Amino acid sequence: MGKKLNRRIGSKLKIIPLGGLEQIGLNMTAFEYEDSIVVVDCGLSFPADDMLGIDLVIPDTTYLENHIEKVKGIAITHGHEDHIGALPYVLRKINVPIYATRLTMGIIENKLKEHEMLQTVERHVVRFGQTVSLGDIDVEYIKTNHSIVDAAALAIHTPAGVVVHTGDFKVDYTPVYGDAIDLQRFAELGKEGVLALMCDSTNAERPGYTPSERTVGRTFDSLFQEHKNTRILVATFASNVDRVQQIINTAYKFGRKVAVEGRSMVNIIETAINLDCIHIPENTLVDLDQLKNYPDEQQVIITTGSQGESMAALSRMANSVHRKITIGPGDTVIFSSHPIPGNEKPVTKIINELLSKGADVIFQDAHVSGHACEEEIKLIYTLVNPQYAIPVHGEYKHLKAQAKIAASLGIEKDNIFLLSSGDVLELDQDGAEVSGKVPVGAILVDGLGVGDVGNVVLRDRQHLAEDGIVIVVMSLERASGELVAGPDIVSRGFVYVRESDELLEEAHAVVDQALGACLERGITDWGKLKGAVKDSLSDYIWRKTKRRPMILPIIMEV
Amino acid sequence: MGKKLNRRIGSKLKIIPLGGLEQIGLNMTAFEYEDSIVVVDCGLSFPADDMLGIDLVIPDTTYLENHIEKVKGIAITHGHEDHIGALPYVLRKINVPIYATRLTMGIIENKLKEHEMLQTVERHVVRFGQTVSLGDIDVEYIKTNHSIVDAAALAIHTPAGVVVHTGDFKVDYTPVYGDAIDLQRFAELGKEGVLALMCDSTNAERPGYTPSERTVGRTFDSLFQEHKNTRILVATFASNVDRVQQIINTAYKFGRKVAVEGRSMVNIIETAINLDCIHIPENTLVDLDQLKNYPDEQQVIITTGSQGESMAALSRMANSVHRKITIGPGDTVIFSSHPIPGNEKPVTKIINELLSKGADVIFQDAHVSGHACEEEIKLIYTLVNPQYAIPVHGEYKHLKAQAKIAASLGIEKDNIFLLSSGDVLELDQDGAEVSGKVPVGAILVDGLGVGDVGNVVLRDRQHLAEDGIVIVVMSLERASGELVAGPDIVSRGFVYVRESDELLEEAHAVVDQALGACLERGITDWGKLKGAVKDSLSDYIWRKTKRRPMILPIIMEV
Repeated sequence: MGKKLNRRIGSKLKIIPLGGLEQIGLNMTAFEYEDSIVVVDCGLSFPADDMLGIDLVIPDTTYLENHIEKVKGIAITHGHEDHIGALPYVLRKINVPIYATRLTMGIIENKLKEHEMLQTVERHVVRFGQTVSLGDIDVEYIKTNHSIVDAAALAIHTPAGVVVHTGDFKVDYTPVYGDAIDLQRFAELGKEGVLALMCDSTNAERPGYTPSERTVGRTFDSLFQEHKNTRILVATFASNVDRVQQIINTAYKFGRKVAVEGRSMVNIIETAINLDCIHIPENTLVDLDQLKNYPDEQQVIITTGSQGESMAALSRMANSVHRKITIGPGDTVIFSSHPIPGNEKPVTKIINELLSKGADVIFQDAHVSGHACEEEIKLIYTLVNPQYAIPVHGEYKHLKAQAKIAASLGIEKDNIFLLSSGDVLELDQDGAEVSGKVPVGAILVDGLGVGDVGNVVLRDRQHLAEDGIVIVVMSLERASGELVAGPDIVSRGFVYVRESDELLEEAHAVVDQALGACLERGITDWGKLKGAVKDSLSDYIWRKTKRRPMILPIIMEV
Repeated sequence: MGKKLNRRIGSKLKIIPLGGLEQIGLNMTAFEYEDSIVVVDCGLSFPADDMLGIDLVIPDTTYLENHIEKVKGIAITHGHEDHIGALPYVLRKINVPIYATRLTMGIIENKLKEHEMLQTVERHVVRFGQTVSLGDIDVEYIKTNHSIVDAAALAIHTPAGVVVHTGDFKVDYTPVYGDAIDLQRFAELGKEGVLALMCDSTNAERPGYTPSERTVGRTFDSLFQEHKNTRILVATFASNVDRVQQIINTAYKFGRKVAVEGRSMVNIIETAINLDCIHIPENTLVDLDQLKNYPDEQQVIITTGSQGESMAALSRMANSVHRKITIGPGDTVIFSSHPIPGNEKPVTKIINELLSKGADVIFQDAHVSGHACEEEIKLIYTLVNPQYAIPVHGEYKHLKAQAKIAASLGIEKDNIFLLSSGDVLELDQDGAEVSGKVPVGAILVDGLGVGDVGNVVLRDRQHLAEDGIVIVVMSLERASGELVAGPDIVSRGFVYVRESDELLEEAHAVVDQALGACLERGITDWGKLKGAVKDSLSDYIWRKTKRRPMILPIIMEV
């Protein structure tokens, strides 16, 4: 990499986050040095509560599209949706090679296959310790630990200096699969000199250390010991291969057979098996249909839906609509997860349902986080010893918490950057500053539509959701402007029509009167007619019901 | 009360929960003995996430309406919305006398005033230790502690035995206002013999004891000491008078002036002042407008909005739309509250906003719960020593947790009743069983409408919210059935029309074709025409967009 380190005077590195700094999800950052742009991650986020009907959200990549000739590739840190989920959409606009470790690429390939893009996207599997050259920028993959196998940090070597991007990580000295995080390489980079550290902030508010994934295995052992006489169901994240490994290990110890339920988990486990990332003792994993040949106390079902997702397997079991699994007093359900903020209510709803069916529900202690807490963050800062600190991955409060940690370690306040998405941070060893802004935003995906639902449509959906719609249709004669049919009133989502005769009759009279007054005064302008109908009906409805349905007058010309 | 204790052979007590057992909120229970019904509490609940546009939810009181001649009164335990909020709606249907302690009645009267019902509702203020006779049933008010002043447990004396209903409570040996919970009376009742205990389950999952409210005062002292040089804002529940008292005490100690912001809090504090439930040192409480005459470090603002409510004062401050208060780096904002499950995301959003404006945000340690934890529940069970245990107030998981506690104290499983709303539990010393079911349900209040929004309207709102609406209007001639105008297509909340010309043009062609095919074949039945239009358009839109907007064909006759 030596060649890249000869500083060319005048050129700075630009770091441009395109998402991920105001929210969990939407992680995507561009690194630009002269004619080379390397993109790190390409994540989606899930719609906010007011984004009605939206399936998912992807970052705005206008800046990359406008500089497509510079974009050398997308380097992915790990296979979670908030880091890879926008790929099928973004690659349609900027089809550049993607780089990822083995399991990460396996998961990406499942996704590309679904979108029928496997033939058109150039893909490179990268080993830990390997460095890929992308124009003027070299990207080095460094082993980390996280709640998914094969997670990587990246050392981004540029002529202006080295940036270490941790991706999502924790420090796990005893991981379930593969090696511990490559702390030595972090130290070595630190010794050589690191320009900036971009470190995961998710758990920056939490003191201490995140326990090893392996501690969950011991919890499973004791829970299985305590519940020897019941069927056991374990709900966890589909992508947490290590967790599934540990459940299988414990099941094997206790002579139980295991079935996996939930499409996303089945897909990932298959991929993990093919890539040898999970080791399953013979005759342990069986089909769900075979499982029922064994007595309850020899069954384990690993399932998706630990976040209360309404369409996932666990939710269907809890609501008695699962085709194959019926929950009853003979069941122990272990939640091997924590609710992600916002999911508390749906998760609690499922717990109540399971309990009311007589199942035993275990909701504590069978989970550890995949993100570094305060002391782990301090360790990385101390090893890497960066000139600048750029906290990433988290809401503002998380970034702020990491900024406090960085400051406590002696990094000067002026060298800590709490960026917003779209900020262009230009930096080299002589200084760093936000020098501009590129377009960013949340592009909404609804069905096949990408970006066709914007603020106008969302506002309408919110309005419709709140109080429904009242439609007034009428036909006017072309020549005379006379009313030849209607006004008819149709409503949806406003009141139960069969029990609201009087209200709707009066509403009809109000519209008749408003229209009549207009026509009498010779007003034939459609805009004015519609306005008069809308205002009078809206007033009437508000007075009578204190509701504000959307009122939509439609005039037809005969 | 002796006269009531002569058992009349054959008559059992009926306990009929009309809400509150499947959710937080909607607390209302009927106690029926022969010709007397006494109702305990009359609470609302807030709408579930799928109840779009609904303002609040009240219990179904059909059973009481059908037995109105028996209903002697409503006894209220305390002034929280989930115990009093349905009164203005329920009293319109069953106008019976209400009974409550002083502050509770003060809060109820504010509510009745708003609904212009103060003249029509008979009200009785009850002292702790007092017993009111309601037909065959005597209701005794017992002092407890809770996160609102003047909370009561009720001992319901009937010829079939005594039922102790704790209301919402905690055991606070050092409350801020008034006496500690009257444990001696619980003990005395237990000694005399209690048929059933209906005990608050909210915190039954939590081990140990809930700390005294007074501990929060000490936290305020140290937080104010640490933030001597900034303005201090404290967000808490509007009805927690003791909390406000403690903030004022600390403010006074530190020579600060206090203003209260948020209509609901201002109302309750005024009521508390009038009833002498709060003691404010002279010249400490000032108007918000006066507050700005003092330097920042002498200002305290107590505000509503600690749950992230979008219209509350704190949210308006965080979003820079509050008319009088601007948040900046000179502010310390203390959350004296925990997010109620489901409110985590809006609360976090406000915290992020406040932090990004430079404010210091303190989110931990300045709150204690108002509900009893496991050891306190054990204390009450041990003092009351009931024959039957009926856990109340909570979701199923909370009730279940209390049932476990009761069992651990030696109450037989058959004597522990996890009721559902609507269950009729008949009991006396010889036995208890669920003998029937009365109608129950959630009545939705939307604006002025009570119960006029039901499942049909909600389903329409959900459909509209998801993908919007596409309206197809056309005019047919009466005699010939010929198409004389249209079809016109109008959409709302579906796609951004200006950028979807092609889609809408094609949709138009699809409708034309479907209509044409019908008319050619001589089909003039409106139902069939509408069906054909709907099906073909729906198919086309799904194919093109993978969305399912509501499709509404409207035919006008000319």
